[in-house]
Amino acid sequence: MPCWHLLPDVRHICINDLTLMRHFANEMLRQNIDESIYNKLADIFNEMYMQIEIAQQRDIALQKSKDYSKFTMDTYNLTQTFKASYYCITSTIYMALILCNKATEESFQLVDDICNDVGIVFQIHNDLTDYMDSDTSISGKSSTDIPLGKCSWPAVAALQHCNTEQRKIFEENYGSWDPECIKRILELYNDLNMLKLYKEEIQSRYNTYLHKVNALPKDATPSPDIFLKILDFYRSYTDDASRYYYV
Amino acid sequence: MPCWHLLPDVRHICINDLTLMRHFANEMLRQNIDESIYNKLADIFNEMYMQIEIAQQRDIALQKSKDYSKFTMDTYNLTQTFKASYYCITSTIYMALILCNKATEESFQLVDDICNDVGIVFQIHNDLTDYMDSDTSISGKSSTDIPLGKCSWPAVAALQHCNTEQRKIFEENYGSWDPECIKRILELYNDLNMLKLYKEEIQSRYNTYLHKVNALPKDATPSPDIFLKILDFYRSYTDDASRYYYV
Repeated sequence: MPCWHLLPDVRHICINDLTLMRHFANEMLRQNIDESIYNKLADIFNEMYMQIEIAQQRDIALQKSKDYSKFTMDTYNLTQTFKASYYCITSTIYMALILCNKATEESFQLVDDICNDVGIVFQIHNDLTDYMDSDTSISGKSSTDIPLGKCSWPAVAALQHCNTEQRKIFEENYGSWDPECIKRILELYNDLNMLKLYKEEIQSRYNTYLHKVNALPKDATPSPDIFLKILDFYRSYTDDASRYYYV
Repeated sequence: MPCWHLLPDVRHICINDLTLMRHFANEMLRQNIDESIYNKLADIFNEMYMQIEIAQQRDIALQKSKDYSKFTMDTYNLTQTFKASYYCITSTIYMALILCNKATEESFQLVDDICNDVGIVFQIHNDLTDYMDSDTSISGKSSTDIPLGKCSWPAVAALQHCNTEQRKIFEENYGSWDPECIKRILELYNDLNMLKLYKEEIQSRYNTYLHKVNALPKDATPSPDIFLKILDFYRSYTDDASRYYYV
């Protein structure tokens, strides 16, 4: 099944469909939620769309640059804070706080501090499955990060851990649709033991998260218990790298 | 100068640029207007975008149908109420009422009743200039309504005033890029004296508007004076068919 925008009767009008879908979501909020709360929730939705679009802009610019000196973990973290953290986790807790009338500048700041880093884990997992799919094709998602030259987590991790010789292989083969080039990149990821790097990466992020949560007072808003439940939910997805978020 | 989305470095990312521009407009409101008023203005902006998108959807569906029995003045009025009236006139007066703290259900209803019909005049004028451009090419706008088969005002007016023979010419030649077909449609519009039909159409809409405004009590909100000033502004654009809105 092709993407919606590729159907012959759709094409460019998909821009209109996209913005209409957004309005329908907004209208559902407006018609069902008390006005004082609706405005706050609508602001979160708007912020979410804006952050994703800023990240999308950065992502495409990085991809087009083909300048792999920019593919650093700092760059990745900053882009994904906008692209993944806010909509995957931060915004959802903000909205829960608004709905139970506990939204304050302090509670928002606390959520932001604790969740930003761990929120990126969903995106790292998503990026990893794109690479795993290149091998096994079991998720039904098309695997395109390597030929498109995306600043995805495996690319950033590879550049972080490779030696001079391996970096040369990366630079010569990344971002090409030539099957030979894709194969060289997959071999490189395999040589670097990407799955092990992934497990270390998310464990490190979870440890930082737990460290921050354990330092919270018991009466913090949100409470430490809530943060621990969120972590359990996260782990159920990301600890098993063969379980795919989008399946 | 080509459209933004046709530039080689832009293409599909224009969807992202579009929504970012919308956010920038929203952020300008949010950062400069008191919160209680901001929410009401933001709602008007959202409503404006949604109405235009609904109209765009209708417009494209009509164009694709090539079913000219649907190209009626009722259809045109309904589509353009969404596409033109709301953003050209109704929403601007709504926002003025909000800014001077005179926004009530009654004042909004009054604006809606009086302005909906006349708001379409901007679109009729715009559609007319597209046809006039086909002859003279002085506005810098590309003239595409005829070859694209748009449900534009001259097409609807032509179908309203043509005889059986002329209708056959319309059906055989409208919506084609063949220069001969375009020429036949231009000749048909000329035979039907399109400029005279235009002047009659907008005069009739202005008369209805004036009739409604003159029936208002002096202390109505908005006042009759405001409505008369709006009409003056309108007339300065539309009475002279050689003066182009988009120049």
